[in-house]
Amino acid sequence: MSSHSWFDIPRGSHFSLANIPFGIISSTSSTTPHVAIAIGNHALDLAIFAANNGFSALSTIQPHQAVFSQPTLNAFATLGRPIHAVVRKYIQSVFVKDTPYPEVLKTNSSLQKQAIFPLKEVQTHLPFKIGDYTDFYAGLNHAYNVGVLFRGPANALQPNYKHLPVGYHGRASSVVVSGTPIRRPNGQILENPAAEQKLPSLSPCRKLDIELELGAFVCRANRMGEPVPISKAQDSLFGVVLMNDWSARDVQAWEYVPLGPFNAKNFGTSISAWVVLADALEPFLVKGLENDTQILPYLQEKNAESVYDIKLQVDLKTSSGQSSTICRTSSRNLLWSFPQMLTHHSITGCPLQVGDLLGSGTISGLEPSERGSLLEQTANGKVSIKLSGEEERRFLEDGDEVTITGVCGSDDGALVGFGDCVGIIEPALKL
Amino acid sequence: MSSHSWFDIPRGSHFSLANIPFGIISSTSSTTPHVAIAIGNHALDLAIFAANNGFSALSTIQPHQAVFSQPTLNAFATLGRPIHAVVRKYIQSVFVKDTPYPEVLKTNSSLQKQAIFPLKEVQTHLPFKIGDYTDFYAGLNHAYNVGVLFRGPANALQPNYKHLPVGYHGRASSVVVSGTPIRRPNGQILENPAAEQKLPSLSPCRKLDIELELGAFVCRANRMGEPVPISKAQDSLFGVVLMNDWSARDVQAWEYVPLGPFNAKNFGTSISAWVVLADALEPFLVKGLENDTQILPYLQEKNAESVYDIKLQVDLKTSSGQSSTICRTSSRNLLWSFPQMLTHHSITGCPLQVGDLLGSGTISGLEPSERGSLLEQTANGKVSIKLSGEEERRFLEDGDEVTITGVCGSDDGALVGFGDCVGIIEPALKL
Ligand SMILES: [Ca+2]
Ligand SMILES: [Ca+2]
Ligand SMILES: [Mg+2]
Ligand SMILES: [Mg+2]
Ligand code: NI
Repeated sequence: MSSHSWFDIPRGSHFSLANIPFGIISSTSSTTPHVAIAIGNHALDLAIFAANNGFSALSTIQPHQAVFSQPTLNAFATLGRPIHAVVRKYIQSVFVKDTPYPEVLKTNSSLQKQAIFPLKEVQTHLPFKIGDYTDFYAGLNHAYNVGVLFRGPANALQPNYKHLPVGYHGRASSVVVSGTPIRRPNGQILENPAAEQKLPSLSPCRKLDIELELGAFVCRANRMGEPVPISKAQDSLFGVVLMNDWSARDVQAWEYVPLGPFNAKNFGTSISAWVVLADALEPFLVKGLENDTQILPYLQEKNAESVYDIKLQVDLKTSSGQSSTICRTSSRNLLWSFPQMLTHHSITGCPLQVGDLLGSGTISGLEPSERGSLLEQTANGKVSIKLSGEEERRFLEDGDEVTITGVCGSDDGALVGFGDCVGIIEPALKL
Repeated sequence: MSSHSWFDIPRGSHFSLANIPFGIISSTSSTTPHVAIAIGNHALDLAIFAANNGFSALSTIQPHQAVFSQPTLNAFATLGRPIHAVVRKYIQSVFVKDTPYPEVLKTNSSLQKQAIFPLKEVQTHLPFKIGDYTDFYAGLNHAYNVGVLFRGPANALQPNYKHLPVGYHGRASSVVVSGTPIRRPNGQILENPAAEQKLPSLSPCRKLDIELELGAFVCRANRMGEPVPISKAQDSLFGVVLMNDWSARDVQAWEYVPLGPFNAKNFGTSISAWVVLADALEPFLVKGLENDTQILPYLQEKNAESVYDIKLQVDLKTSSGQSSTICRTSSRNLLWSFPQMLTHHSITGCPLQVGDLLGSGTISGLEPSERGSLLEQTANGKVSIKLSGEEERRFLEDGDEVTITGVCGSDDGALVGFGDCVGIIEPALKL
C-alpha cells in the first residue's frame, strides 16, 4: 500500500497510513468520549465521521455505526476481526492520496474541521472497559534474571516455566491510560528482611519499579467450559498496547508466599492510549525465543512466527528535567505468544470476555541495557544505574516520569507505532 | 422486632422477617431480570412492587426506584448502607403482622399476585456485575492444615500469615450463581509429581476439590490512590453470600510457582443467589480466631467482634442419589474480618468498585469433621472419606453435587440464612 496520503502525516510518525490504531478520545468541542483513530499528529473522531456519512462507501459497517459513539472500544471489538480489518482498510483508502472517495473527507473541508483534532488537543481515555486483566510471565530473560537473583542460576526457572505460560490474575480496576499519575503505594514491608524475626512495618514503597510489557485485548468471548483452540486464538485478539506493570518489590517480597503478588501490583498498571490492531502488526510477526522443551499439542502453533518484533524503549525523566534512556529491546524476547497465552488461559474452560487484557510479562533482552525492570538492572537495588546529569537510581523516586515507546518497521513513512505509555510517580499518601 | 408476619413464612425458613436478603430474579411472567427480596418460600419482585406504589410510604427511596429494575444489584448497592437499611426496615414493616401500611401489600391481593412468586418458580441470576474478584486466605485452620500437608507443622504458616490477610486476585468472569453446573476442567498436571523429570500431560483434573468460603460484596468505591481506613471499611460492605471456590489441586500443584494459582481456580466459582445484608448479619458478629501477633495499626479494629458466626454445612450427593454431610463448621473460624481484608486490599490505593467480590478463604474448624476442603479431609488424596451407602471419595467425581448451606440464629422463627450454594460436576470436555 502506498504510504502517501493527501493528509499531512509527518515522516517518522508512529501513526502512519500503515497503522490506523484505535482509541477513545474527548475534546473541548466534543466532551463525550468516543471512538477515534490516530493518524499522524491528529485523531479522527469516528462518531462524528460516521454521523456525517463518513462510512457512506462502506456498507458493511452501516448497521453497526453506533459502536463508534461508545465510550469504549468493547462494542467495536465485538464485531470481530474481519470487520476491524475492513474498517481499517476503508479508513486507509479514505486517507490515501488517490482516494476513490475524495468527497468523504479529502475535499470535505467542513468534515475535516469537525472530525479531525490535533492529538495535543484531545484527551485520551482507557480504550476498553476491562472485565478481567491477566498478567503472564512470558519474558524468558526476565524470568531467568529474576530467578537468578532469588534462587541462583541452577534453579532460576521453575520446572513448569517452559511447559506453560505462567500467569496470574491481576487487578483490572487499576489499569489506567497513559498519562495518569501513579501514586507511590503504601504497604507492608520488611525493613530488615534478613532478620530472624520478621517484623513488618507500614511504609511508602521503597522499591518502586517498572515492568516493560505488551498488553493484548480480547475481542471474542468464549463460553464457560469451552476452551479456545490454538488454531482459533488469533481470532480472539483485537490488538496490542504498551504496558507498564508498576511493581512494589518490597511489598511483593513480603506478601507473595504462597499465593503470588497482590498489593505489590494492584495500585496501578499503565497502558498506551492507542490500540494497534493485530492486522496492522501482522507484517512484524517473527519467531519468539527458542523453546528447547517439547510442549504439549494444545499449545503448538502452526506458524512459528507468532510474536511481534516491536522496538521498545524506556526513558526515565527525573524531576531535574533530565531524561535518560534506560532500556532498549524488542518484544521478540518472549517464550510464549499471545495466542498461546489465550489458549492456555481458556484450556480449563475459563470464559474470556471482550475487553479482557492479557499482559505479556516483563520483556528483557540478553544484554544489561535490554532489561525491562530496575529489579534486573540494579540486582534488586544492590547497584545503581547511572542517569544523565550525574543522577543515579536503584528504584523510582518521587517525580520520576517513565515513558515507554514502541514502534515497528524501518520505513519512516510507514511506521506502525504505539505512541507512548507515560506515568509520573507522585509521593505516597501520608497515612 | 416481632418475627410474626401476616405472610406465610414457614418456621425454619432461612428467609425470615429478620433477614430480607436481596437477589436478582426472572420468571416466566416477568422474563427481564430485576431486583427482588426473598421471604419464606417466596420472592418479592421489587421492580413490580415499586411500579405499583409499593414504596409509597418510603419517600427516601422514591427518587431511586429505577435501581430495582436493573439486572444486577450494583445500582441499589451504590445507594449506600443507610439506604439499604431503610429499604430493608421498610420491607420488614410491610410484612409484619401489624403493618402500619396494610394497603401496600397485606390487603392488596392484586399486587401480591403480581409481585410475589414462589421461589421454586423463579430463576435466580448472578446478583452483581462483578468488576474484580479477590480471594483471601483468612481461614487460619485451613491455611495451617494445608501448610502441614506441604511443608510440615514447623513451617505450616508462612511468616506473613498473621501480619496481613494474604490474598490473590481471582477470575471475575467465571463467578456463577448457585445451580450453575461446573464442568471438570482440563489442564496441565504431573501424573507422577515425584519423578525427577517433570513431564506434564494435558488431562481432565483428577483432584477436583471444593473450598467452603464466604463472599462479601463491595458497595462503595474508593478513588485510586485513596485507601479505605479500617474505621470506614464496614460502610463499604454490602452483604455476604456463601461461596464455593472450586479448585483443581493437581493443576495448582504444577502451575502455582512462582506467581500463585491461576488455571486451578479460573474455571468456576459458585456463589449463593441471595445476598444477606451486612445489617441483617450484625447481631451475629463474634470475635474471630485469636491473633497472637501484634498487628499493624492500620488493621486494628475498634470492635473485636468482627466476623460472623454462620453455621455452615457442606453436603455431597453422588450420582447414586445418596447425600452425605461432609463438613459442619462456623464462619467464626477466620483470622481476618472482611473490613480488615478490604482495608488491606486498598492500603496501596487500589481502587475498589461497587460489585467487587471478596472471598474469605477456606473455612475450617479444628476437628476433622469441620474441614472445608477435600484436600484437608483426605490429606491430599492419601485417605478417602466415607459417604453414606458404602461410597467413598478422595476428590470429586463426575455427577457429584455439592451443596453449601449457611444460617445464623437459633430461633426457628427468626433465622438469617443464605439458602444454599449448589453445583454439580459435569464430565470434562473431550479435547
Ligand atoms: Ca508483570
Ligand atoms: Ca479459595
Ligand atoms: Mg501493575
Ligand atoms: Mg474458583
Ligand atoms: Ni458523540
